[in-house]
Amino acid sequence: MYESDVGLLAPGWAGSPAETATGDSAFLQAMLDAEAALTRAQSLCGLAPAEAGRAVTAAADASRFDERDVALRARASGNPVTPLVFDLVDAVEQDVRPYVHRGASSQDILDTAAMLIAARALAPVLDDLARSAEAVARLALAHRNTPMAGRTLTQHAVPTTFGLKAAGWRALILDARDRLSAVRESLPAQLGGAAGTLAAFNTFAPIGEAEVADDDRRGLTVLQAFAKELGLAEPLLPWLSLRTPIADLAGALAFTAGALGKLAADVLNLSRTEIGEVTEGKGGGSSTMPHKANPVRATLIAAAARRAPGLAATLYGSLAAEDERPAGSWHAEWEPLRELLRLVGGAAYDAAELTDQLRVVPYAMRENLQLTDGLIVSERLAAVFAERIGRKRAKEVLVSAAARARAETTDLADVLGDVLDEEPELAGLDLSDLTEPARYTGCAGALTDRALDRG
Amino acid sequence: MYESDVGLLAPGWAGSPAETATGDSAFLQAMLDAEAALTRAQSLCGLAPAEAGRAVTAAADASRFDERDVALRARASGNPVTPLVFDLVDAVEQDVRPYVHRGASSQDILDTAAMLIAARALAPVLDDLARSAEAVARLALAHRNTPMAGRTLTQHAVPTTFGLKAAGWRALILDARDRLSAVRESLPAQLGGAAGTLAAFNTFAPIGEAEVADDDRRGLTVLQAFAKELGLAEPLLPWLSLRTPIADLAGALAFTAGALGKLAADVLNLSRTEIGEVTEGKGGGSSTMPHKANPVRATLIAAAARRAPGLAATLYGSLAAEDERPAGSWHAEWEPLRELLRLVGGAAYDAAELTDQLRVVPYAMRENLQLTDGLIVSERLAAVFAERIGRKRAKEVLVSAAARARAETTDLADVLGDVLDEEPELAGLDLSDLTEPARYTGCAGALTDRALDRG
Amino acid sequence: MYESDVGLLAPGWAGSPAETATGDSAFLQAMLDAEAALTRAQSLCGLAPAEAGRAVTAAADASRFDERDVALRARASGNPVTPLVFDLVDAVEQDVRPYVHRGASSQDILDTAAMLIAARALAPVLDDLARSAEAVARLALAHRNTPMAGRTLTQHAVPTTFGLKAAGWRALILDARDRLSAVRESLPAQLGGAAGTLAAFNTFAPIGEAEVADDDRRGLTVLQAFAKELGLAEPLLPWLSLRTPIADLAGALAFTAGALGKLAADVLNLSRTEIGEVTEGKGGGSSTMPHKANPVRATLIAAAARRAPGLAATLYGSLAAEDERPAGSWHAEWEPLRELLRLVGGAAYDAAELTDQLRVVPYAMRENLQLTDGLIVSERLAAVFAERIGRKRAKEVLVSAAARARAETTDLADVLGDVLDEEPELAGLDLSDLTEPARYTGCAGALTDRALDRG
Amino acid sequence: MYESDVGLLAPGWAGSPAETATGDSAFLQAMLDAEAALTRAQSLCGLAPAEAGRAVTAAADASRFDERDVALRARASGNPVTPLVFDLVDAVEQDVRPYVHRGASSQDILDTAAMLIAARALAPVLDDLARSAEAVARLALAHRNTPMAGRTLTQHAVPTTFGLKAAGWRALILDARDRLSAVRESLPAQLGGAAGTLAAFNTFAPIGEAEVADDDRRGLTVLQAFAKELGLAEPLLPWLSLRTPIADLAGALAFTAGALGKLAADVLNLSRTEIGEVTEGKGGGSSTMPHKANPVRATLIAAAARRAPGLAATLYGSLAAEDERPAGSWHAEWEPLRELLRLVGGAAYDAAELTDQLRVVPYAMRENLQLTDGLIVSERLAAVFAERIGRKRAKEVLVSAAARARAETTDLADVLGDVLDEEPELAGLDLSDLTEPARYTGCAGALTDRALDRG
Repeated sequence: MYESDVGLLAPGWAGSPAETATGDSAFLQAMLDAEAALTRAQSLCGLAPAEAGRAVTAAADASRFDERDVALRARASGNPVTPLVFDLVDAVEQDVRPYVHRGASSQDILDTAAMLIAARALAPVLDDLARSAEAVARLALAHRNTPMAGRTLTQHAVPTTFGLKAAGWRALILDARDRLSAVRESLPAQLGGAAGTLAAFNTFAPIGEAEVADDDRRGLTVLQAFAKELGLAEPLLPWLSLRTPIADLAGALAFTAGALGKLAADVLNLSRTEIGEVTEGKGGGSSTMPHKANPVRATLIAAAARRAPGLAATLYGSLAAEDERPAGSWHAEWEPLRELLRLVGGAAYDAAELTDQLRVVPYAMRENLQLTDGLIVSERLAAVFAERIGRKRAKEVLVSAAARARAETTDLADVLGDVLDEEPELAGLDLSDLTEPARYTGCAGALTDRALDRG
Repeated sequence: MYESDVGLLAPGWAGSPAETATGDSAFLQAMLDAEAALTRAQSLCGLAPAEAGRAVTAAADASRFDERDVALRARASGNPVTPLVFDLVDAVEQDVRPYVHRGASSQDILDTAAMLIAARALAPVLDDLARSAEAVARLALAHRNTPMAGRTLTQHAVPTTFGLKAAGWRALILDARDRLSAVRESLPAQLGGAAGTLAAFNTFAPIGEAEVADDDRRGLTVLQAFAKELGLAEPLLPWLSLRTPIADLAGALAFTAGALGKLAADVLNLSRTEIGEVTEGKGGGSSTMPHKANPVRATLIAAAARRAPGLAATLYGSLAAEDERPAGSWHAEWEPLRELLRLVGGAAYDAAELTDQLRVVPYAMRENLQLTDGLIVSERLAAVFAERIGRKRAKEVLVSAAARARAETTDLADVLGDVLDEEPELAGLDLSDLTEPARYTGCAGALTDRALDRG
Repeated sequence: MYESDVGLLAPGWAGSPAETATGDSAFLQAMLDAEAALTRAQSLCGLAPAEAGRAVTAAADASRFDERDVALRARASGNPVTPLVFDLVDAVEQDVRPYVHRGASSQDILDTAAMLIAARALAPVLDDLARSAEAVARLALAHRNTPMAGRTLTQHAVPTTFGLKAAGWRALILDARDRLSAVRESLPAQLGGAAGTLAAFNTFAPIGEAEVADDDRRGLTVLQAFAKELGLAEPLLPWLSLRTPIADLAGALAFTAGALGKLAADVLNLSRTEIGEVTEGKGGGSSTMPHKANPVRATLIAAAARRAPGLAATLYGSLAAEDERPAGSWHAEWEPLRELLRLVGGAAYDAAELTDQLRVVPYAMRENLQLTDGLIVSERLAAVFAERIGRKRAKEVLVSAAARARAETTDLADVLGDVLDEEPELAGLDLSDLTEPARYTGCAGALTDRALDRG
Repeated sequence: MYESDVGLLAPGWAGSPAETATGDSAFLQAMLDAEAALTRAQSLCGLAPAEAGRAVTAAADASRFDERDVALRARASGNPVTPLVFDLVDAVEQDVRPYVHRGASSQDILDTAAMLIAARALAPVLDDLARSAEAVARLALAHRNTPMAGRTLTQHAVPTTFGLKAAGWRALILDARDRLSAVRESLPAQLGGAAGTLAAFNTFAPIGEAEVADDDRRGLTVLQAFAKELGLAEPLLPWLSLRTPIADLAGALAFTAGALGKLAADVLNLSRTEIGEVTEGKGGGSSTMPHKANPVRATLIAAAARRAPGLAATLYGSLAAEDERPAGSWHAEWEPLRELLRLVGGAAYDAAELTDQLRVVPYAMRENLQLTDGLIVSERLAAVFAERIGRKRAKEVLVSAAARARAETTDLADVLGDVLDEEPELAGLDLSDLTEPARYTGCAGALTDRALDRG
């Protein structure tokens, strides 16, 4: 008996579209898809009977193979392609067998499968990002003028708006979308043969009267047909030890995890019991504390954001791959790449739900804006006063007023009323306007507008 | 339908003892073990009927629960304990139900399960390390005096022995063993309740006439009994956001992966086609190149060594856990910890096989020692000559002799024969001894001996 | 002209004791200390004139060397020892020159220097940790019974005490101290010669009548004397490619950064404008917002905690060092190790100040405990009610009472008063006691006591 | 006294253009450049006298400030901008002072400075990459048809050409160039004010008759002018906690380090004493072993490639920045970003020298191709034989011939001569052609050509 993993430790992605797209069955199917395309490509190039392509394609159905058995036998050669090819050969008729896996290396198949998996897993991710972008756009629009405390280094600084905050979330989501889309569109097939020269293909004789490319370019035609069959890009060179596609995925995925991590970090802070400016629509309950509604979606996204950088680092490290095919750095890529796809897939899925259902509490934002008794607009007062009585005097006035307001636990505006009487140059200022946080949100509205204009 | 993972992308650990010890079923069982121990502990402390402990223990059998269902429902609360407790309550009689999970938080159960898993997974790791240590000790003893090229910055430097190299591998393996053993012996149970105060236990009334601890210390007795029931250490404090045990595991596991990675790096280099000083007993074959015997075990160990640091980094990062229980950093620990246990478990398993079956080729070592035509002992000649004709003159003599040897593609010893005739102070030196690599292995033997004395 | 770094981007450690202990001058001096000890060791072993040891020691004064020139010339050989040895030879009399750097590799000197630097940099770190541990012990004692909200997943859960929180900080600080002390006490000297065999030493003739060790053990005596001269441990084997000491430092330093990072994470949260339960004694001001007092010390510690894991990961990765001396992994250690020492040194320095001056605001803690209108003790009520009316009914009662309390924005205790009238089994319960957060801090006091007992 | 760093531990970048571009003085100047541009921008927008812009620009000369003093005072506020602004105010006339740093946050200045530094540091990097790309293009062209062993998992697999290998290096270098160029062209200025709303600017009155933008858009005009003054891109939103520019730099820099790391990994392997197919033009010498010529450039590049991923991981981790300005994640960016710029700058500088001076040894390549006595073309023989006698029989023939060749230490071609006599279907095959490695380099030539066509 053995123990398969069913996502027990992965509430962040169990049940998500990314899970299905990246599971062992999906990988097995993707490897088989690559094998089938390889034989079909040779059929198309006149190097294999048309029949062979069809037969391998028909046989290449993951449900007919024993995944676990392949996994266990993978230990001998160090990768699952070797045993899988053995089984695939077995699954076709005698006369087709010579055309199975012909000319390819294990890495050709596994790398190509990884690209197929990435293409498939990123489709729902991009959809979920689009949903999130729309949801936060709605929030930004609805709260374009909802004032809230701008917080820096954990402290209230000056007012901002929830619209601008949501517009910022959207900007990051769109940045993630742009990076993932660009990478997804350029995912290349892998085909190099034993050491990246495509040499074996050049040795294959034409089938019957088929016209084939010259001896020293035959492999190139197979490469082109192979990529086309799979809907992947044709690489300029086999990339067996030129790992740009993996590194690009790593970067775009780590970026996306971090971008969603920013959203999560804000939601976690804003939903603190003491702050209460947002709550997750469906907070997670607690078995023992009936009152709790935990920000679970944000928590799981935050966890993904913490894990992605270390996984991406491993993939960037694998760029330094020695020789024509490396011993170890390639093998170190498979699981981190899949895990990144899953974490990001799960986080995007969670983010779509989170943003769709997020409840915003303008009342709490307004209350929190009062917490510093007016000091949150001290920057504005300093600027306005300074124009009249100089920077230094303005600062003195404000510091003493603030101290008095705190000592008397009264509002800054009240204290300032008295102060203004003693500073004739400040006479006539509209204190209720000057100390109103909603009147000091700067370009927040205009910034929100231009950020929302981005397509 | 969903896709479970069966180790397809993990030839480094699929089929290893570590896999069974860390799978989702194992984790489910460990969580149930923790739940059962929790109820038993309360029975022992007079806070639950003895019957309750027995009943929960009987029900706590992973095979009776639907793992996948638990995994999917874990999404709502963000961890698998909440749905599992629900099912466990269902699995016992009405009168026992109040005593299920009583007083604990989800994290108490999951953290405790992780410690049980670590304890179980590390047992075969320590065995495998012991086997490896013995195997390389045999190699070190057998090759105590087998000379080989010492290589630095990829170039031949001075001779060393294979014995010393194997003794070095052993030193790292023992270092790993020591670190893992120490961590394993101190793995603590986790019990803190909702926020680490053990408060709920204090509210539970004694069963019948049972003597129970004072109101404000009742939780402490449960904690003690709980740890004892599980064979885990009793922590001084609940460690819900004091993550020393996780960080210690991370460090010891990353260390072990790296220590085995050193062995793998050497084996990979020494088995290069051009070097050929060692070969894996059972190299992995290639489907298309019948001559190839790849160092597969070393490759997979090297891959584990590349992945471990990034995973450990995530765990170290989770030390900075805010509040009484953190939102995200805890959730980011589960999979990296398990993956580290698996990678190290698989690497230890592979290393035991690798070291047991490693073939050493003294003949190749001897041949390679000749590659620089004697220059590998130039350090020795420089030192001996310097004592007689001064450092500067010695260097001149050697540099010119080396140049001549290279130009004439002859042996340095031959050229030096002529040179010595012209340097009376050097007369009488035994050149055949001085240029014999096997005579310039320094303290390699003595170092090997003392390293092997370490128990 | 060139640009030296003076700490402009490093407010976390500029001006700290760790900075002085780890600067380029300190490293240069440590390398010179190693060179001097090497010659003295050979004098002690009868392999160099006593005079030579004295002369090299006298010359080994960093202020007499041109650091920048050494740094620039280091490019040629890839490390600073080669040019430094050149200059050191120049700095001594003709007859002493043969005894400079004799028998050693560059790595022997640089590794030994790194161990000296670590020993020196860790001394103030341990002092600062001791100061922090004392300060938080004082806080724990003073606030043993100060109730505050226990927070989990950002939400109020059940009450805890500030004493228990501070005791937790102390536990982590002591854990860090224990790990750093253990590593510091075992820092080994490095001496292996060109490839770890100590071969050159064996070729050196005794000075005059000196008694020296046998030919094949002479290097061992030098190694022993060398370590003793430096106050470092004598390693069982040269560790040129057995990097246990570096990995151990990495682990202990990453642990310490994370341990202090937990303290910082809590301080940052608790000092949020909305929470206000602690403030840094000297918050950092803002030029434009006179009211702001930023938690600067905690911010800089948090930044260190974010950086340490990535640096430690690089060092763990360097364990997989090929050959007798590796090409790259060794070179990748120097700066990350120093940076870790600095980050941890600066964080410990900041933490000592932070904990010494932290202002605790029990009044705010008390106010925040009321934020959920009594719900923070719902776990307790549920347990007490359940004993009388069963778990299910108890939950119903509480959920409906909580809903009413929220709807009427009144206190849970008030609502419950009405409820109790309708549930005869609940009659007689002392609601004011049951809903008092300070009466539901569980074993917090006892846990604090036993944690403070740890020495 | 304090210790400045002069690059002693950094032979990888000390003395490189990247060092000068990123030193503390360069950063100080960049911060001053940002301050000067900020005042000029306000002059241009009618919010400050033209005189103020000129005066601040004149004063903004790093050589007039005390870097160390700024560094030490940075501890109080946690960043160097606060003390620098203080000094800059001091450095201008009384009437200009109100216009210094007006409306900006510290982060505006430091982030903008970082972008200026990145722009300046990447210029020489791109030049060096261009030089490397040209050098390896020359190598690829010159060795388009130079056969060498293709190596996979450390073992000879099939032949390839050095031309294809060099073309692969170039492909990665161009990939790095493309990524860095794209990032460099979009480096944005940072300006958001205290919390990203640009609010303060809106409060500033026009100077004299100046026409200024509407109240709620005035900050936008300043942002636009500010970016233009600096030659940086204008961001759609202030990015105080939207860290796309930093993450993009991290990704492109980690990519570049890895791309050059692949080159280094190959050079290190190919220059091993046993392989000897390339040597660095100027290898690094050893003080004690006159024969050694270490691949120092490749070693230092390899070290950079090992360090970059961990640094990039920290920067990706900082994407999850809470609030309007985060406490810690921002501070954790400064040094890793600079270190990445330096490591990559140094590695590009080293790579340009390495590739320019690399010596290729076709003779050694040819000799190594013979090491397996013909087995390196077994894939070809298997394919050709299979077409005539079937896959299975072909494999049997080859395996037995290979075994005999090894046993008799003779050439595979000789053994095969005998074999062919017994297999009539194989008669007439030109064995000397079939076993000639140079005749089995597949599409290497065509691939090289098309890779070199890429501009």
